[in-house]
Amino acid sequence: MDNRPIGIFDSGVGGLTVAKEIMSRLKNEEVVYFGDTARLPYGSKSKETITKFSFQDVRFLLSKNVKAVIIACNTASANSFEAIKEKFDIPVFGVVSPGAAAAARATKNGRIGVIATTGTVKSGAYEKAIHNIDSGLNVISKACPLFVPLVEEGWADDEITYLTARKYISSLIDDGVDTIVMGCTHYPLLYKCLKKVAGDGVLLVNPAEETTKAVEEFLDGNDMFREGGGAPSHSFFVSDSTDMFEKICLDALGRKFLADKIDIEGY
Amino acid sequence: MDNRPIGIFDSGVGGLTVAKEIMSRLKNEEVVYFGDTARLPYGSKSKETITKFSFQDVRFLLSKNVKAVIIACNTASANSFEAIKEKFDIPVFGVVSPGAAAAARATKNGRIGVIATTGTVKSGAYEKAIHNIDSGLNVISKACPLFVPLVEEGWADDEITYLTARKYISSLIDDGVDTIVMGCTHYPLLYKCLKKVAGDGVLLVNPAEETTKAVEEFLDGNDMFREGGGAPSHSFFVSDSTDMFEKICLDALGRKFLADKIDIEGY
Repeated sequence: MDNRPIGIFDSGVGGLTVAKEIMSRLKNEEVVYFGDTARLPYGSKSKETITKFSFQDVRFLLSKNVKAVIIACNTASANSFEAIKEKFDIPVFGVVSPGAAAAARATKNGRIGVIATTGTVKSGAYEKAIHNIDSGLNVISKACPLFVPLVEEGWADDEITYLTARKYISSLIDDGVDTIVMGCTHYPLLYKCLKKVAGDGVLLVNPAEETTKAVEEFLDGNDMFREGGGAPSHSFFVSDSTDMFEKICLDALGRKFLADKIDIEGY
Repeated sequence: MDNRPIGIFDSGVGGLTVAKEIMSRLKNEEVVYFGDTARLPYGSKSKETITKFSFQDVRFLLSKNVKAVIIACNTASANSFEAIKEKFDIPVFGVVSPGAAAAARATKNGRIGVIATTGTVKSGAYEKAIHNIDSGLNVISKACPLFVPLVEEGWADDEITYLTARKYISSLIDDGVDTIVMGCTHYPLLYKCLKKVAGDGVLLVNPAEETTKAVEEFLDGNDMFREGGGAPSHSFFVSDSTDMFEKICLDALGRKFLADKIDIEGY
């Protein structure tokens, strides 16, 4: 057993969808969450900057004595997973490999779409991960930079979001994909819209769910589950003001959690 | 005379519209521009974080021996102008006061709309500045967080942008404003769309133009123009990768400039 907490970091609040999966699937585990709300988004930044920020994020989580790190942010997973794995001596999980594996398993016609931030698409990480599994699969990627601001504006169900989704993913549909990876933590919040625009014949993969299964298998295989120790006590940290985070946290996790503000640039 | 350069900072590339005004109106002046592309946008962040970032931005410009600082970013002007003025011993210009003054002069019916980022609207800075001039004026503000990503996606002329503009500014039009302040550096790039949606009876004020006039008056009144010294040599700095900046710089300024990347967190 290993009673240390699981560390999760994200560029902001989107990673709470991953925290939620972990907390509901691994009910006895403790979570330390860091959201880099002062410097978000990562999706439009360069690989070099994303890696620099990610290293600081991991260093902060290590200071909280975590037993593993989950990179909840697709952009950071896509650009910095290898660098983090190399630099830090701790088990690291990104969301890209599990998402890619799920898509490769799910597709019937061998045509997979990936929708993500510009930074994730540019990295080519989903293509590489899918081709590592089966080089015969076709992967068609599309950057959708407006989806995050549309979610954050609260317009998930607005006509404007449907028009935007059509503009972004019609080329994937025309190309005949039967599976689409929602390659950004915010996109599952557009599930209803994406499902309607993509049509019933297209399966939407949520990497957060797949990542949680991978973490569970790892902890199980290495005898690292938290055992006893009373009810888990989760902690949340952000780099910008905690006000908005706490409201969003309540919406996302259905429970009230207080967050602490930290100076991430010092890590 | 004072041959030191004028410092301009912005959260990213939007402030190039201010640099362009300065460079075309004050042709003999040198400009040092800093765009905080690693940490953009400022518009969704808290006042505390915006002020912390702005202090670092000013410190960097001071290290380049500038004679004045222009805060090209509306969000930073709205949230941190007073704090910057107090902390640093250098002439500082924000875009809010000049924009507010122009709107107060322009309105005929005393009803002014302000469209801006969430951070600018929350600060109430435009209202305060307009009411300082004439407390009888009505100011109606509207945060438009999707405008920047729409501009950056290159959709300035897309149906989606027109629908978004209608959604954001129809309430201002219903309220009978005859003047709208474009309170974010990106918004003048939506001029055509905003003009069409607002109608011919509504004047759109660009604070960048007004700010340049204020800087010119100040330099003139204090005998601080650059004189002689050969053709001005401008310099550009960013905190993220320089690749994209250089392309955008060419589009915005019509000339090629190289940028240097700096570590802003060290200032």
